[in-house]
Amino acid sequence: MLSKKWLKFIKSLQTKKFRQENGAFLVEGAKSVRELLQSDFAIRILFATEEFYHAAIRSPDGPGFAVEIVNPAELAAAGVFQSNNACLAVAGIKENRKLFAEAGEYVLVLDEVKDPGNLGTLIRVADWYGIRKVVCSANTADCYNPKVIAASVGSFTRVDLYYCDLRDYLSQHRDRAIYGAFLDGENLHQTSFAASGYVVMGNESRGISETLRPLIPHRITIPRFGGAESLNVGIAAAVVCDNLRKQLTMISGQWAVDG
Amino acid sequence: MLSKKWLKFIKSLQTKKFRQENGAFLVEGAKSVRELLQSDFAIRILFATEEFYHAAIRSPDGPGFAVEIVNPAELAAAGVFQSNNACLAVAGIKENRKLFAEAGEYVLVLDEVKDPGNLGTLIRVADWYGIRKVVCSANTADCYNPKVIAASVGSFTRVDLYYCDLRDYLSQHRDRAIYGAFLDGENLHQTSFAASGYVVMGNESRGISETLRPLIPHRITIPRFGGAESLNVGIAAAVVCDNLRKQLTMISGQWAVDG
Repeated sequence: MLSKKWLKFIKSLQTKKFRQENGAFLVEGAKSVRELLQSDFAIRILFATEEFYHAAIRSPDGPGFAVEIVNPAELAAAGVFQSNNACLAVAGIKENRKLFAEAGEYVLVLDEVKDPGNLGTLIRVADWYGIRKVVCSANTADCYNPKVIAASVGSFTRVDLYYCDLRDYLSQHRDRAIYGAFLDGENLHQTSFAASGYVVMGNESRGISETLRPLIPHRITIPRFGGAESLNVGIAAAVVCDNLRKQLTMISGQWAVDG
Repeated sequence: MLSKKWLKFIKSLQTKKFRQENGAFLVEGAKSVRELLQSDFAIRILFATEEFYHAAIRSPDGPGFAVEIVNPAELAAAGVFQSNNACLAVAGIKENRKLFAEAGEYVLVLDEVKDPGNLGTLIRVADWYGIRKVVCSANTADCYNPKVIAASVGSFTRVDLYYCDLRDYLSQHRDRAIYGAFLDGENLHQTSFAASGYVVMGNESRGISETLRPLIPHRITIPRFGGAESLNVGIAAAVVCDNLRKQLTMISGQWAVDG
Protein backbone atom coordinates (compact mmCIF):
# COMPACT_ATOMS: atom_id res chain seq x y z
CA MET A 1 0.00 0.00 0.00
CA LEU A 2 1.10 3.54 -0.62
CA SER A 3 0.96 5.41 2.69
CA LYS A 4 0.05 9.09 2.90
CA LYS A 5 3.58 9.83 4.06
CA TRP A 6 5.14 8.20 1.00
CA LEU A 7 2.56 9.77 -1.31
CA LYS A 8 3.49 13.20 0.02
CA PHE A 9 7.20 12.45 -0.36
CA ILE A 10 6.77 11.21 -3.93
CA LYS A 11 4.73 14.29 -4.88
CA SER A 12 7.42 16.53 -3.37
CA LEU A 13 10.01 15.00 -5.73
CA GLN A 14 8.28 16.67 -8.65
CA THR A 15 10.03 19.90 -7.64
CA LYS A 16 13.77 20.46 -7.96
CA LYS A 17 14.06 21.99 -4.50
CA PHE A 18 12.81 18.83 -2.78
CA ARG A 19 14.82 16.55 -5.06
CA GLN A 20 17.98 18.39 -4.05
CA GLU A 21 17.09 18.50 -0.36
CA ASN A 22 16.43 14.76 -0.33
CA GLY A 23 19.06 13.74 -2.88
CA ALA A 24 16.38 11.64 -4.57
CA PHE A 25 14.38 11.48 -7.79
CA LEU A 26 11.48 9.53 -9.33
CA VAL A 27 11.58 6.92 -12.07
CA GLU A 28 8.18 5.92 -13.43
CA GLY A 29 6.97 3.07 -15.62
CA ALA A 30 8.15 -0.42 -16.51
CA LYS A 31 10.65 0.49 -19.26
CA SER A 32 12.50 3.15 -17.23
CA VAL A 33 12.50 1.15 -13.99
CA ARG A 34 13.85 -1.95 -15.74
CA GLU A 35 16.75 0.13 -17.04
CA LEU A 36 17.23 1.61 -13.56
CA LEU A 37 17.46 -1.88 -12.04
CA GLN A 38 20.37 -2.64 -14.38
CA SER A 39 22.20 0.63 -13.68
CA ASP A 40 24.55 1.81 -10.94
CA PHE A 41 21.92 4.16 -9.44
CA ALA A 42 21.08 3.43 -5.78
CA ILE A 43 17.39 2.55 -5.42
CA ARG A 44 15.83 3.73 -2.16
CA ILE A 45 12.41 2.17 -2.59
CA LEU A 46 10.37 0.52 -5.33
CA PHE A 47 6.58 0.71 -5.50
CA ALA A 48 5.42 -2.01 -7.85
CA THR A 49 2.39 -4.07 -8.72
CA GLU A 50 2.61 -7.73 -7.72
CA GLU A 51 2.88 -8.57 -11.42
CA PHE A 52 5.77 -6.20 -12.19
CA TYR A 53 7.63 -7.19 -9.04
CA HIS A 54 7.61 -10.89 -9.86
CA ALA A 55 8.51 -10.30 -13.49
CA ALA A 56 11.36 -7.87 -12.80
CA ILE A 57 12.99 -9.03 -9.54
CA ARG A 58 14.31 -12.52 -10.08
CA SER A 59 17.18 -12.75 -7.58
CA PRO A 60 16.57 -15.48 -4.96
CA ASP A 61 18.11 -13.17 -2.33
CA GLY A 62 15.47 -10.48 -2.97
CA PRO A 63 15.97 -7.07 -4.48
CA GLY A 64 18.41 -5.51 -1.98
CA PHE A 65 16.21 -2.46 -1.43
CA ALA A 66 12.81 -1.68 0.08
CA VAL A 67 9.75 -2.72 -1.91
CA GLU A 68 6.07 -1.91 -1.44
CA ILE A 69 3.42 -3.76 -3.43
CA VAL A 70 0.81 -1.31 -4.73
CA ASN A 71 -2.06 -1.33 -7.21
CA PRO A 72 -2.19 0.51 -10.57
CA ALA A 73 -4.63 3.13 -9.27
CA GLU A 74 -2.21 4.08 -6.48
CA LEU A 75 0.63 4.40 -9.02
CA ALA A 76 -1.42 6.59 -11.34
CA ALA A 77 -2.36 8.84 -8.41
CA ALA A 78 1.20 9.11 -7.10
CA GLY A 79 3.23 9.82 -10.22
CA VAL A 80 3.40 12.45 -12.92
CA PHE A 81 2.25 10.11 -15.70
CA GLN A 82 -1.26 8.75 -15.35
CA SER A 83 -0.52 6.01 -17.86
CA ASN A 84 1.91 4.36 -15.42
CA ASN A 85 0.39 1.12 -14.18
CA ALA A 86 3.44 -0.96 -13.30
CA CYS A 87 5.95 0.67 -10.97
CA LEU A 88 7.58 3.77 -9.55
CA ALA A 89 11.03 3.93 -7.98
CA VAL A 90 12.77 6.48 -5.79
CA ALA A 91 16.49 6.55 -6.59
CA GLY A 92 19.45 8.56 -5.33
CA ILE A 93 20.77 11.57 -7.23
CA LYS A 94 24.40 11.25 -8.34
CA GLU A 95 27.13 13.67 -7.38
CA ASN A 96 27.71 16.52 -9.91
CA ARG A 97 31.06 15.14 -11.04
CA LYS A 98 33.17 16.94 -13.65
CA LEU A 99 33.19 15.35 -17.10
CA PHE A 100 35.41 16.06 -20.09
CA ALA A 101 36.25 14.59 -23.49
CA GLU A 102 38.99 12.00 -23.35
CA ALA A 103 40.94 10.84 -26.43
CA GLY A 104 38.60 9.51 -29.14
CA GLU A 105 35.55 10.77 -27.30
CA TYR A 106 32.85 13.37 -27.94
CA VAL A 107 30.92 15.29 -25.28
CA LEU A 108 27.57 16.99 -25.91
CA VAL A 109 27.33 20.46 -24.34
CA LEU A 110 23.91 22.06 -23.76
CA ASP A 111 23.52 25.79 -23.31
CA GLU A 112 20.23 26.67 -21.61
CA VAL A 113 18.00 23.91 -22.95
CA LYS A 114 14.88 24.83 -21.01
CA ASP A 115 12.30 22.25 -22.00
CA PRO A 116 12.48 18.98 -19.99
CA GLY A 117 11.15 16.99 -22.96
CA ASN A 118 13.94 18.35 -25.15
CA LEU A 119 16.59 17.53 -22.54
CA GLY A 120 15.27 13.95 -22.24
CA THR A 121 15.32 13.61 -26.03
CA LEU A 122 18.89 14.94 -26.16
CA ILE A 123 20.01 12.34 -23.59
CA ARG A 124 18.36 9.62 -25.71
CA VAL A 125 20.06 10.93 -28.87
CA ALA A 126 23.46 11.07 -27.09
CA ASP A 127 22.94 7.47 -25.94
CA TRP A 128 22.01 6.28 -29.46
CA TYR A 129 25.17 7.85 -30.87
CA GLY A 130 27.43 6.48 -28.12
CA ILE A 131 28.01 9.82 -26.37
CA ARG A 132 28.14 9.06 -22.65
CA LYS A 133 28.81 12.54 -21.30
CA VAL A 134 26.54 15.59 -21.46
CA VAL A 135 27.64 18.91 -19.94
CA CYS A 136 24.89 21.45 -19.21
CA SER A 137 24.77 25.13 -18.34
CA ALA A 138 23.42 25.74 -14.83
CA ASN A 139 20.19 27.13 -16.35
CA THR A 140 19.48 24.01 -18.43
CA ALA A 141 16.47 21.93 -17.24
CA ASP A 142 17.18 19.64 -14.28
CA CYS A 143 18.02 16.14 -15.53
CA TYR A 144 16.16 14.60 -12.55
CA ASN A 145 12.85 16.24 -13.54
CA PRO A 146 10.39 13.33 -14.07
CA LYS A 147 9.64 14.63 -17.59
CA VAL A 148 13.34 14.43 -18.50
CA ILE A 149 13.58 10.89 -17.12
CA ALA A 150 10.48 9.85 -19.09
CA ALA A 151 11.60 11.47 -22.37
CA SER A 152 15.03 9.83 -22.14
CA VAL A 153 13.30 6.39 -22.36
CA GLY A 154 15.86 4.76 -20.08
CA SER A 155 18.91 6.48 -21.56
CA PHE A 156 19.43 8.49 -18.35
CA THR A 157 20.99 5.33 -16.92
CA ARG A 158 23.76 5.26 -19.55
CA VAL A 159 24.61 8.94 -19.98
CA ASP A 160 26.28 11.04 -17.27
CA LEU A 161 25.47 14.73 -16.85
CA TYR A 162 27.50 17.56 -15.38
CA TYR A 163 26.12 21.05 -14.64
CA CYS A 164 28.48 24.01 -14.59
CA ASP A 165 29.27 27.50 -15.87
CA LEU A 166 29.87 26.85 -19.57
CA ARG A 167 32.04 29.91 -20.04
CA ASP A 168 34.58 28.62 -17.56
CA TYR A 169 34.16 25.07 -18.79
CA LEU A 170 34.76 25.80 -22.49
CA SER A 171 37.69 28.10 -21.62
CA GLN A 172 39.33 25.21 -19.79
CA HIS A 173 38.81 22.65 -22.56
CA ARG A 174 40.19 24.33 -25.64
CA ASP A 175 42.72 21.53 -26.00
CA ARG A 176 40.09 19.63 -28.01
CA ALA A 177 37.96 20.75 -30.97
CA ILE A 178 34.82 22.66 -29.99
CA TYR A 179 31.92 22.69 -32.45
CA GLY A 180 28.70 24.64 -32.05
CA ALA A 181 25.40 24.59 -33.98
CA PHE A 182 24.61 28.04 -35.40
CA LEU A 183 22.36 29.30 -38.18
CA ASP A 184 25.29 30.98 -39.97
CA GLY A 185 28.11 28.46 -39.71
CA GLU A 186 29.99 26.17 -42.06
CA ASN A 187 27.93 23.55 -43.92
CA LEU A 188 27.74 20.47 -41.66
CA HIS A 189 27.95 18.23 -44.73
CA GLN A 190 31.38 19.67 -45.50
CA THR A 191 32.68 19.79 -41.93
CA SER A 192 35.76 17.77 -41.12
CA PHE A 193 35.47 16.50 -37.55
CA ALA A 194 38.42 15.93 -35.21
CA ALA A 195 38.72 12.52 -33.53
CA SER A 196 37.41 13.95 -30.27
CA GLY A 197 35.82 17.13 -29.00
CA TYR A 198 32.73 18.98 -27.88
CA VAL A 199 29.46 19.71 -29.68
CA VAL A 200 27.55 22.69 -28.25
CA MET A 201 23.79 23.02 -28.81
CA GLY A 202 21.94 26.17 -27.76
CA ASN A 203 18.67 27.37 -26.30
CA GLU A 204 15.39 26.50 -28.08
CA SER A 205 14.67 30.05 -29.20
CA ARG A 206 17.89 32.05 -28.87
CA GLY A 207 20.51 29.45 -29.81
CA ILE A 208 23.96 29.57 -28.23
CA SER A 209 24.57 32.49 -25.81
CA GLU A 210 26.52 35.51 -27.06
CA THR A 211 29.06 35.07 -24.26
CA LEU A 212 29.95 31.55 -25.43
CA ARG A 213 30.38 32.37 -29.11
CA PRO A 214 34.02 33.53 -28.88
CA LEU A 215 34.86 30.20 -27.21
CA ILE A 216 33.55 28.09 -30.11
CA PRO A 217 36.01 28.06 -33.03
CA HIS A 218 33.98 25.70 -35.26
CA ARG A 219 30.54 27.07 -36.12
CA ILE A 220 28.46 24.51 -38.01
CA THR A 221 25.06 24.70 -39.70
CA ILE A 222 22.73 21.96 -40.87
CA PRO A 223 22.07 22.70 -44.54
CA ARG A 224 18.49 23.62 -45.30
CA PHE A 225 16.76 22.66 -48.53
CA GLY A 226 13.27 24.10 -47.95
CA GLY A 227 11.32 26.74 -46.10
CA ALA A 228 11.35 25.87 -42.37
CA GLU A 229 13.20 28.48 -40.32
CA SER A 230 14.70 26.09 -37.79
CA LEU A 231 14.79 22.56 -36.44
CA ASN A 232 14.01 21.41 -32.90
CA VAL A 233 17.19 21.17 -30.78
CA GLY A 234 16.87 17.39 -30.30
CA ILE A 235 16.59 16.88 -34.05
CA ALA A 236 19.50 19.22 -34.77
CA ALA A 237 21.69 17.35 -32.26
CA ALA A 238 20.80 13.99 -33.84
CA VAL A 239 21.68 15.24 -37.34
CA VAL A 240 25.03 16.63 -36.13
CA CYS A 241 25.88 13.42 -34.24
CA ASP A 242 24.91 11.30 -37.23
CA ASN A 243 27.24 13.25 -39.53
CA LEU A 244 30.01 13.12 -36.97
CA ARG A 245 29.71 9.36 -36.39
CA LYS A 246 29.39 8.61 -40.09
CA GLN A 247 32.54 10.53 -40.90
CA LEU A 248 34.63 9.15 -38.04
CA THR A 249 33.48 5.60 -38.81
CA MET A 250 34.40 6.00 -42.48
CA ILE A 251 37.84 7.29 -41.51
CA SER A 252 38.48 4.44 -39.10
CA GLY A 253 37.39 2.07 -41.90
CA GLN A 254 34.96 0.08 -39.86
CA TRP A 255 31.20 0.19 -39.66
CA ALA A 256 30.92 -0.32 -35.92
CA VAL A 257 27.18 -0.54 -35.59
CA ASP A 258 25.97 -1.33 -32.06
CA GLY A 259 29.61 -1.14 -30.94
CA MET B 1 -15.05 41.06 -29.36
CA LEU B 2 -15.32 37.31 -29.42
CA SER B 3 -19.02 36.43 -29.37
CA LYS B 4 -20.34 33.30 -27.67
CA LYS B 5 -21.31 31.92 -31.04
CA TRP B 6 -17.77 32.24 -32.41
CA LEU B 7 -16.26 30.95 -29.19
CA LYS B 8 -18.40 27.83 -29.44
CA PHE B 9 -17.47 27.39 -33.11
CA ILE B 10 -13.75 27.79 -32.40
CA LYS B 11 -13.91 25.27 -29.56
CA SER B 12 -15.73 22.80 -31.82
CA LEU B 13 -12.78 22.92 -34.26
CA GLN B 14 -10.64 21.13 -31.70
CA THR B 15 -12.34 17.90 -32.77
CA LYS B 16 -11.83 16.26 -36.14
CA LYS B 17 -15.54 15.60 -36.66
CA PHE B 18 -16.40 19.30 -36.52
CA ARG B 19 -13.39 20.30 -38.61
CA GLN B 20 -14.58 17.95 -41.34
CA GLU B 21 -18.22 19.00 -41.08
CA ASN B 22 -17.26 22.67 -41.37
CA GLY B 23 -14.27 22.25 -43.68
CA ALA B 24 -12.34 24.54 -41.37
CA PHE B 25 -9.41 24.46 -38.94
CA LEU B 26 -7.67 26.70 -36.39
CA VAL B 27 -4.33 28.42 -36.67
CA GLU B 28 -3.07 29.98 -33.43
CA GLY B 29 -0.30 32.42 -32.61
CA ALA B 30 1.65 35.12 -34.43
CA LYS B 31 4.26 32.90 -36.12
CA SER B 32 1.76 30.40 -37.58
CA VAL B 33 -0.78 33.07 -38.62
CA ARG B 34 1.90 35.14 -40.38
CA GLU B 35 2.84 32.07 -42.41
CA LEU B 36 -0.85 31.42 -43.10
CA LEU B 37 -1.29 34.97 -44.42
CA GLN B 38 1.43 34.28 -46.99
CA SER B 39 0.03 30.90 -48.05
CA ASP B 40 -2.70 29.82 -50.47
CA PHE B 41 -5.04 28.75 -47.65
CA ALA B 42 -8.41 30.54 -47.64
CA ILE B 43 -8.87 32.48 -44.39
CA ARG B 44 -12.47 32.62 -43.17
CA ILE B 45 -11.95 34.93 -40.21
CA LEU B 46 -9.07 36.36 -38.21
CA PHE B 47 -9.34 37.19 -34.51
CA ALA B 48 -6.44 39.47 -33.67
CA THR B 49 -5.33 42.03 -31.14
CA GLU B 50 -5.22 45.61 -32.40
CA GLU B 51 -1.44 45.41 -32.24
CA PHE B 52 -1.09 42.21 -34.30
CA TYR B 53 -3.63 43.38 -36.85
CA HIS B 54 -1.82 46.63 -37.58
CA ALA B 55 1.58 44.93 -37.69
CA ALA B 56 0.50 42.04 -39.94
CA ILE B 57 -2.11 43.48 -42.33
CA ARG B 58 -0.51 46.21 -44.36
CA SER B 59 -2.57 46.22 -47.56
CA PRO B 60 -4.37 49.58 -48.09
CA ASP B 61 -7.39 47.63 -49.44
CA GLY B 62 -7.78 45.71 -46.17
CA PRO B 63 -7.23 42.05 -45.55
CA GLY B 64 -9.79 40.50 -47.93
CA PHE B 65 -11.38 38.43 -45.17
CA ALA B 66 -13.39 39.03 -41.97
CA VAL B 67 -11.47 40.38 -38.97
CA GLU B 68 -12.53 40.77 -35.34
CA ILE B 69 -10.38 42.74 -32.93
CA VAL B 70 -10.08 40.90 -29.61
CA ASN B 71 -7.99 41.11 -26.47
CA PRO B 72 -5.29 38.63 -25.34
CA ALA B 73 -7.50 37.19 -22.57
CA GLU B 74 -10.20 36.30 -25.12
CA LEU B 75 -7.59 34.59 -27.32
CA ALA B 76 -6.19 32.57 -24.43
CA ALA B 77 -9.71 31.45 -23.49
CA ALA B 78 -10.70 30.53 -27.06
CA GLY B 79 -7.73 28.53 -28.29
CA VAL B 80 -5.87 25.38 -27.36
CA PHE B 81 -2.67 27.19 -26.36
CA GLN B 82 -2.96 29.53 -23.41
CA SER B 83 0.28 31.25 -24.36
CA ASN B 84 -1.34 32.68 -27.49
CA ASN B 85 -1.76 36.43 -27.02
CA ALA B 86 -1.73 37.73 -30.60
CA CYS B 87 -4.17 36.07 -32.99
CA LEU B 88 -6.23 33.09 -34.03
CA ALA B 89 -7.43 32.35 -37.55
CA VAL B 90 -10.07 30.04 -38.96
CA ALA B 91 -8.97 28.74 -42.36
CA GLY B 92 -10.46 26.35 -44.93
CA ILE B 93 -9.34 22.71 -45.12
CA LYS B 94 -7.84 21.73 -48.47
CA GLU B 95 -9.16 18.94 -50.65
CA ASN B 96 -7.51 15.52 -50.09
CA ARG B 97 -5.72 15.59 -53.44
CA LYS B 98 -3.53 12.69 -54.57
CA LEU B 99 0.22 13.32 -54.39
CA PHE B 100 3.10 11.30 -55.81
CA ALA B 101 6.85 11.59 -56.42
CA GLU B 102 7.71 13.25 -59.69
CA ALA B 103 11.16 13.04 -61.33
CA GLY B 104 13.88 14.28 -58.96
CA GLU B 105 11.48 14.41 -56.04
CA TYR B 106 11.11 12.60 -52.72
CA VAL B 107 7.84 12.01 -50.85
CA LEU B 108 7.64 11.23 -47.13
CA VAL B 109 5.14 8.45 -46.32
CA LEU B 110 3.81 8.06 -42.76
CA ASP B 111 2.28 4.82 -41.56
CA GLU B 112 0.09 5.33 -38.49
CA VAL B 113 1.93 8.20 -36.82
CA LYS B 114 -0.49 8.70 -33.93
CA ASP B 115 0.93 11.59 -31.93
CA PRO B 116 -0.05 15.05 -33.24
CA GLY B 117 3.22 16.54 -31.95
CA ASN B 118 5.19 13.97 -33.91
CA LEU B 119 3.19 14.63 -37.09
CA GLY B 120 3.78 18.38 -36.75
CA THR B 121 7.50 17.78 -36.24
CA LEU B 122 7.61 15.50 -39.30
CA ILE B 123 5.99 18.22 -41.43
CA ARG B 124 8.62 20.70 -40.17
CA VAL B 125 11.43 18.23 -40.94
CA ALA B 126 10.02 17.58 -44.44
CA ASP B 127 9.89 21.35 -45.02
CA TRP B 128 13.50 21.85 -43.83
CA TYR B 129 14.71 19.16 -46.24
CA GLY B 130 12.69 20.48 -49.17
CA ILE B 131 10.14 17.64 -49.22
CA ARG B 132 6.81 19.21 -50.17
CA LYS B 133 4.61 16.12 -50.18
CA VAL B 134 3.68 13.89 -47.25
CA VAL B 135 1.41 10.88 -47.75
CA CYS B 136 -0.28 9.46 -44.61
CA SER B 137 -2.16 6.29 -43.75
CA ALA B 138 -5.82 6.95 -42.91
CA ASN B 139 -5.07 6.20 -39.23
CA THR B 140 -2.28 8.80 -38.96
CA ALA B 141 -3.12 11.85 -36.80
CA ASP B 142 -5.22 14.51 -38.53
CA CYS B 143 -2.98 17.21 -39.98
CA TYR B 144 -5.57 19.89 -39.09
CA ASN B 145 -5.41 19.06 -35.37
CA PRO B 146 -4.33 22.32 -33.62
CA LYS B 147 -1.39 20.47 -32.00
CA VAL B 148 -0.11 19.40 -35.42
CA ILE B 149 -0.41 22.95 -36.75
CA ALA B 150 1.46 24.31 -33.71
CA ALA B 151 4.24 21.68 -33.82
CA SER B 152 4.82 22.30 -37.53
CA VAL B 153 5.82 25.92 -36.69
CA GLY B 154 4.36 27.28 -39.93
CA SER B 155 5.59 24.46 -42.16
CA PHE B 156 2.01 23.24 -42.71
CA THR B 157 1.69 26.09 -45.23
CA ARG B 158 4.50 24.73 -47.44
CA VAL B 159 3.95 20.97 -47.27
CA ASP B 160 0.93 19.21 -48.82
CA LEU B 161 -0.59 16.12 -47.21
CA TYR B 162 -2.59 13.29 -48.71
CA TYR B 163 -4.41 10.61 -46.67
CA CYS B 164 -5.06 7.20 -48.20
CA ASP B 165 -4.73 3.44 -47.89
CA LEU B 166 -0.96 2.98 -47.99
CA ARG B 167 -1.16 -0.59 -49.23
CA ASP B 168 -2.93 0.49 -52.40
CA TYR B 169 -0.78 3.60 -52.65
CA LEU B 170 2.60 1.86 -52.42
CA SER B 171 1.41 -0.89 -54.79
CA GLN B 172 0.64 1.79 -57.38
CA HIS B 173 3.95 3.64 -57.05
CA ARG B 174 6.55 0.93 -57.42
CA ASP B 175 7.93 2.72 -60.48
CA ARG B 176 10.12 4.74 -58.08
CA ALA B 177 12.42 3.58 -55.28
CA ILE B 178 10.66 2.92 -51.98
CA TYR B 179 12.73 3.11 -48.77
CA GLY B 180 11.46 2.31 -45.29
CA ALA B 181 13.01 2.79 -41.84
CA PHE B 182 13.31 -0.53 -39.99
CA LEU B 183 15.40 -1.75 -37.07
CA ASP B 184 16.90 -4.57 -39.16
CA GLY B 185 17.63 -2.96 -42.50
CA GLU B 186 20.72 -1.93 -44.46
CA ASN B 187 23.03 0.63 -42.81
CA LEU B 188 21.71 4.09 -43.77
CA HIS B 189 25.30 5.37 -44.00
CA GLN B 190 25.97 2.88 -46.79
CA THR B 191 22.65 3.27 -48.61
CA SER B 192 22.73 4.47 -52.18
CA PHE B 193 19.66 6.62 -52.83
CA ALA B 194 17.87 6.89 -56.17
CA ALA B 195 17.27 10.38 -57.59
CA SER B 196 13.62 10.21 -56.55
CA GLY B 197 11.37 8.03 -54.46
CA TYR B 198 9.46 7.44 -51.26
CA VAL B 199 10.66 7.24 -47.64
CA VAL B 200 8.27 5.36 -45.32
CA MET B 201 8.35 5.97 -41.55
CA GLY B 202 6.27 3.81 -39.20
CA ASN B 203 4.23 3.98 -36.04
CA GLU B 204 5.86 5.26 -32.82
CA SER B 205 5.85 1.89 -31.07
CA ARG B 206 5.29 -0.78 -33.72
CA GLY B 207 7.17 0.66 -36.69
CA ILE B 208 5.98 -0.02 -40.23
CA SER B 209 2.90 -2.30 -40.51
CA GLU B 210 3.44 -5.95 -41.42
CA THR B 211 1.13 -5.57 -44.41
CA LEU B 212 3.32 -2.85 -45.93
CA ARG B 213 6.66 -4.62 -45.52
CA PRO B 214 6.47 -6.66 -48.75
CA LEU B 215 5.89 -3.42 -50.65
CA ILE B 216 9.12 -1.79 -49.42
CA PRO B 217 12.17 -3.16 -51.28
CA HIS B 218 14.77 -0.95 -49.54
CA ARG B 219 14.86 -1.47 -45.79
CA ILE B 220 17.17 1.02 -44.11
CA THR B 221 18.40 1.40 -40.51
CA ILE B 222 20.06 4.31 -38.76
CA PRO B 223 23.30 2.90 -37.33
CA ARG B 224 23.41 2.87 -33.56
CA PHE B 225 26.61 3.47 -31.59
CA GLY B 226 25.29 3.26 -28.02
CA GLY B 227 22.60 1.80 -25.82
CA ALA B 228 19.27 3.51 -26.68
CA GLU B 229 16.77 1.07 -28.17
CA SER B 230 15.18 3.47 -30.61
CA LEU B 231 14.87 7.06 -31.79
CA ASN B 232 11.75 9.21 -31.93
CA VAL B 233 10.09 9.06 -35.39
CA GLY B 234 10.68 12.78 -36.07
CA ILE B 235 14.38 12.41 -35.30
CA ALA B 236 14.68 9.25 -37.38
CA ALA B 237 13.03 10.98 -40.36
CA ALA B 238 15.39 13.95 -40.05
CA VAL B 239 18.47 11.71 -40.00
CA VAL B 240 17.25 9.77 -43.05
CA CYS B 241 16.43 12.98 -44.98
CA ASP B 242 19.80 14.49 -44.05
CA ASN B 243 21.67 11.46 -45.42
CA LEU B 244 19.53 11.44 -48.54
CA ARG B 245 20.00 15.15 -49.26
CA LYS B 246 23.72 15.04 -48.50
CA GLN B 247 24.26 12.17 -50.91
CA LEU B 248 22.12 13.56 -53.72
CA THR B 249 23.73 16.99 -53.37
CA MET B 250 27.20 15.48 -53.54
CA ILE B 251 26.23 13.54 -56.68
CA SER B 252 24.79 16.59 -58.38
CA GLY B 253 28.00 18.41 -57.46
CA GLN B 254 26.34 21.44 -55.97
CA TRP B 255 25.78 22.43 -52.37
CA ALA B 256 22.32 23.90 -52.83
CA VAL B 257 21.72 25.25 -49.36
CA ASP B 258 18.48 27.19 -48.99
CA GLY B 259 17.68 26.27 -52.61
